[in-house]
Amino acid sequence: YRRKRAHEVNMSILVEEDLWRPWPKTRKRIRACLECIKHQLFRIGDDWYFLFVLGVLMAMISFTMDFTVSKLQKAHRWLYQELGDNTLLKYLSWIVYPISLTAFSTGFAQSISAQSGGSGLPELKIILTGVMMEEYLTMKNFGAKVVGMTCTLAAGSPIFLGKVGPFVHLSCMIATFLGKIRTCVSGDYENKNKQFEMLVAAAAVGVASVFGAPISGVLFSVEVVTSHFAVRNYWRGFFAATCGAFIFRLLAVFNSEQVTLTALFKTSFKIDFPFDIPETFYFIVLGVICGVITCAYLFCQRWFLGYIRRNRIIVKLMATDKAVYSALVALLVSSITFPLGLGQFMASRLTMKELLTSLFDNKTWFILSQNASLAKPPKVDPTNLWLEWWDPNFTIFGTLAFFLVMKFWMLILVTTMPMPAGYFMPVFVIGAAIGRIFGEVLAYLFPSGITSEGITTPISPGGYALAGAAAFSGAVTHTLSTSLLVFELTGQIAHILPVIITVLIANAIAQKCQPSFYDGSIIVKKLPYLPRIRSSDTGSYSVTAEQFMNTNFISLNKNADSQEVLKAFTATTSLVYPIVENTESMVLVGSVQRSELGTFLQTHGDEQANEDKMSQKENLRPSIQEYCSIDPITFQLSTQTSLHQAHHLFELLSLQHSFVTSSGKVAGFVTRSELKAAIEDLAHGR
Amino acid sequence: YRRKRAHEVNMSILVEEDLWRPWPKTRKRIRACLECIKHQLFRIGDDWYFLFVLGVLMAMISFTMDFTVSKLQKAHRWLYQELGDNTLLKYLSWIVYPISLTAFSTGFAQSISAQSGGSGLPELKIILTGVMMEEYLTMKNFGAKVVGMTCTLAAGSPIFLGKVGPFVHLSCMIATFLGKIRTCVSGDYENKNKQFEMLVAAAAVGVASVFGAPISGVLFSVEVVTSHFAVRNYWRGFFAATCGAFIFRLLAVFNSEQVTLTALFKTSFKIDFPFDIPETFYFIVLGVICGVITCAYLFCQRWFLGYIRRNRIIVKLMATDKAVYSALVALLVSSITFPLGLGQFMASRLTMKELLTSLFDNKTWFILSQNASLAKPPKVDPTNLWLEWWDPNFTIFGTLAFFLVMKFWMLILVTTMPMPAGYFMPVFVIGAAIGRIFGEVLAYLFPSGITSEGITTPISPGGYALAGAAAFSGAVTHTLSTSLLVFELTGQIAHILPVIITVLIANAIAQKCQPSFYDGSIIVKKLPYLPRIRSSDTGSYSVTAEQFMNTNFISLNKNADSQEVLKAFTATTSLVYPIVENTESMVLVGSVQRSELGTFLQTHGDEQANEDKMSQKENLRPSIQEYCSIDPITFQLSTQTSLHQAHHLFELLSLQHSFVTSSGKVAGFVTRSELKAAIEDLAHGR
Repeated sequence: YRRKRAHEVNMSILVEEDLWRPWPKTRKRIRACLECIKHQLFRIGDDWYFLFVLGVLMAMISFTMDFTVSKLQKAHRWLYQELGDNTLLKYLSWIVYPISLTAFSTGFAQSISAQSGGSGLPELKIILTGVMMEEYLTMKNFGAKVVGMTCTLAAGSPIFLGKVGPFVHLSCMIATFLGKIRTCVSGDYENKNKQFEMLVAAAAVGVASVFGAPISGVLFSVEVVTSHFAVRNYWRGFFAATCGAFIFRLLAVFNSEQVTLTALFKTSFKIDFPFDIPETFYFIVLGVICGVITCAYLFCQRWFLGYIRRNRIIVKLMATDKAVYSALVALLVSSITFPLGLGQFMASRLTMKELLTSLFDNKTWFILSQNASLAKPPKVDPTNLWLEWWDPNFTIFGTLAFFLVMKFWMLILVTTMPMPAGYFMPVFVIGAAIGRIFGEVLAYLFPSGITSEGITTPISPGGYALAGAAAFSGAVTHTLSTSLLVFELTGQIAHILPVIITVLIANAIAQKCQPSFYDGSIIVKKLPYLPRIRSSDTGSYSVTAEQFMNTNFISLNKNADSQEVLKAFTATTSLVYPIVENTESMVLVGSVQRSELGTFLQTHGDEQANEDKMSQKENLRPSIQEYCSIDPITFQLSTQTSLHQAHHLFELLSLQHSFVTSSGKVAGFVTRSELKAAIEDLAHGR
Repeated sequence: YRRKRAHEVNMSILVEEDLWRPWPKTRKRIRACLECIKHQLFRIGDDWYFLFVLGVLMAMISFTMDFTVSKLQKAHRWLYQELGDNTLLKYLSWIVYPISLTAFSTGFAQSISAQSGGSGLPELKIILTGVMMEEYLTMKNFGAKVVGMTCTLAAGSPIFLGKVGPFVHLSCMIATFLGKIRTCVSGDYENKNKQFEMLVAAAAVGVASVFGAPISGVLFSVEVVTSHFAVRNYWRGFFAATCGAFIFRLLAVFNSEQVTLTALFKTSFKIDFPFDIPETFYFIVLGVICGVITCAYLFCQRWFLGYIRRNRIIVKLMATDKAVYSALVALLVSSITFPLGLGQFMASRLTMKELLTSLFDNKTWFILSQNASLAKPPKVDPTNLWLEWWDPNFTIFGTLAFFLVMKFWMLILVTTMPMPAGYFMPVFVIGAAIGRIFGEVLAYLFPSGITSEGITTPISPGGYALAGAAAFSGAVTHTLSTSLLVFELTGQIAHILPVIITVLIANAIAQKCQPSFYDGSIIVKKLPYLPRIRSSDTGSYSVTAEQFMNTNFISLNKNADSQEVLKAFTATTSLVYPIVENTESMVLVGSVQRSELGTFLQTHGDEQANEDKMSQKENLRPSIQEYCSIDPITFQLSTQTSLHQAHHLFELLSLQHSFVTSSGKVAGFVTRSELKAAIEDLAHGR
């Protein structure tokens, strides 16, 4: 009663207040208007708020990680400088950092979650085809990956690893987590379709928040993780990626690294005459070179990944002491890159960012290096990074070539370390180096530049470095969007046509000969995987479902009782059973999960066995139609469906399983493994 | 005999020649190697050659058209200049060109093919959802469109129309034609799927060959014409668009317009400090403004398109003399833009290209116009295009505002002219003007620029023009890729983040309130069309197929004889009949086309009628199972399928029709019209 009374008093006060305020009608209208706006915003909202939060969170994580890593690296550089002339001490200080950090990264990540190693992109690709791998998207995994990644990156340029893949993975973990929170808070359904859409957007955010490149972030993630996508998802990804990139670059301004929102690796090429038409030919040659090196790299990479899974000693070591393996690899790699040893010929004092900045330099090193009075500075000189590449005896060609040869096998080696790490950035840097050396060779061959129509232009090797980075990273990952990424990264778009041509050619060669880096990992890790059908395999149109379907199935009558169910349950181990109208006509009317049958048998199996003994009243027998949830058939293949079409539909609808019927009768079923076998038969000429 | 003899002689000569040539083994090996390369190339090839040819052809058409149009426009400008001071003569020379050219364009195009009017993009969108509209892709239509387009463009800036849409349409026509040739030559099957893939790639080529912008060409065409796409198609589009853009820009170099491959509308903004962080706020405001103007424009556009279809006088005129209608509109529009009349306040002496170049100018007109000693030049001065916008009494704000107001209604008017024309470019220019005036106002409000961290930057209205163009054109077409297009067009990418934000905001407002320009045309033209389900319409998850399916169907027993077929054939007019196992169980086993039934009745109907009278041997009766081709059911909805899912599947699989079953029994069917009705019910709150 007291409460009610208080409420009434409150109300009357409110009413009085209302009466005393002026213009009640106007206020009412404004209030209604505000209410309407609020309603509108929250109605559009929902997903958009979610995507906004995702973008902001990822940008903050990315920025914080970069910030921490740069501080740690500065500390390392300072330590290394301060040790003076004692070579042994310098060596120890050089190697102790990578060894301890990688060992910690491996140990920490592996002890918390075994799924946190590697980039996580191959697994994500599999998840987006509809296979459930929930352990990959847990928050435990997230923690392990963030800490591990920070250590990996802080280990610096000797270890030579990046953060793109893991960030895509991290972003998807956050999206899953936010999705769960949303479901809890709003009590909203969270269906599978929605989750899929969010994961695609999250992948875009991952890339965008690493590079500050929204458009290519979306395109890259789409190309890497999915085979089909809806324009609607593209918008979501675009929005989230823009939020991520914007906040990421804004934080850089707040941290006084930049004066305004600009590109991450700003270049300063000439805009008026960036390259000459005849140079297009050399860009094509560069594309071919990148394509061939990609094939070699992908082959070696896959072979070595397989090798360490076969080699007994390594397998033993990996089974018990993963951290020791990482430490050993780090020891080898950092010893080789020691700046007073071999490292002086491969610019090993530069961090990954400095490497990239120096390679995209708009000056021509060959011309600069002809100046005789050069000397390598004792410290890295940020305004003349190229000096790190210069050696009086070795020349810049020598150092660049040496860098490429060493990094080629070192990258293959470090990718086997079982810690969280990205493999895109190192590939990108190696590509830039390939392009740079190619450009410098051209500048050497044509010292006066290329003349056309009376205008003489010196060749700018930076443009080739751009093209090389895009082409090599694009070919390794089988994507074309790297050609846009380099422009978003550098803030200049003048080289767009030659870069795209280079990327296309490198991709054509790589896609012809080798599976992509991510597909290669999927193959080596033996994850469920549906190979592509090449458009030249016209045989896929003539192979029909009849030829590759699995006919080893047992169908259940829709009125089947528990005895029949038991028989079917024990006879095969299929996960889905077809339900037919009756066993004579065999017309498919639905399907039932094996687990459903199990439950049915548990509840009704015994009961009926007793009943059987007592009476024979057939009508009372419990049938699956009554007690099991029978899934309707929405999709079925016909025996005449071609392999090409079946593959297309499995990809499009993320199907895992489908029945094959012939004028309504069940004839068999097809799963991804049947499809895979059929495609492989086709590729090997049956 | 003689022939055989000659052949033998030939052979012996060849053999002898072979013997006489040195190193037969090496030569054999080289030949085998060449054969292998040839085989490899042609195996990858096929599609790639096709796409290459498509790109080259479109680039050549685009370039040739630009070339012709620029010559025609130069002639017009020369004529106008040479007439001296006689205002009447000048007026006549100003109006006669647009009137005659548009009248000819309309008359010519309409007399050859009635489908060649307009942009063709809405129809293309419908074709790509699986509806057959073959008359839109014929070569007759192609010819009409090319000639018509040239005239439309040559009519110049008074008419103010572009060429993007028609070029997408032209490109698809060429792709269809090339596909037919390929089928003839190689005897290869050309299935529907392949045709679809080629059309998507062709759409990309269309945009790329107009703007020389490959990446945004692909993205724009994808966003406009499809709702889902495969990454594989994206690669095809990318390749073809690159070929198109490359050749298009190369031809410009050969024609000495450019020294090297550069952007179409090259800008020269400052790279180091293009805009300041606080300006992001103004970009957001610009996005809101563009969004609101877009809504107004789209509403007026749709209303006016509807109006001229209702107004009796216009309908009569359009039915008989389309060319007269065009001429009248051209007369009105060109009179208003007469440079000695109202035209002087709206920069009407500039062509579309010059308009865009002037609006993207990096100088601040407000600052320039404070110089008192200015005078409008008698001729257009290509180095000071902005002077056309300047008027001593009106100020640049006045001219820009007047331009916007006049062009707003004039654009709506000219889009009703029934001739081949594109509507993207004018929208793009209007957007640029909106951005420019906004930027100039900012420059006026903050004459000293925006100060941050001690650095003072003058505001660059060109950046706002860029953002305005992207946002307005993006919002009108409901696409986001215009944000990339502006950078590919201008060759500078520094403004990427603010431009994307502006585009996103304008799009959010436009998509919330109005259907896109193309969807609007589809609605007005009453083409078959599946509306989008908004993600906020969560009701679409709870509406099931049971509630919106059509239950008015007649099913046929699979052994039905001609009498039953006749009964079913006459009872309804459905295009597809379900075939059931038997009429008691009603279990769906297949479907048959109405046309098939017609053929069946023609051949067996009479025959059986006679038979019936003579004997009653039931077994001899011809049944549809034997004589009709029964299509297998690959896809069916369940009665529990939600509207959301059904819509998704119809879009994804380009379905036109699907049966609804409940545990195998036919319960109804769903076509696009049922889906559309259900979605509209949902949107109007049922």
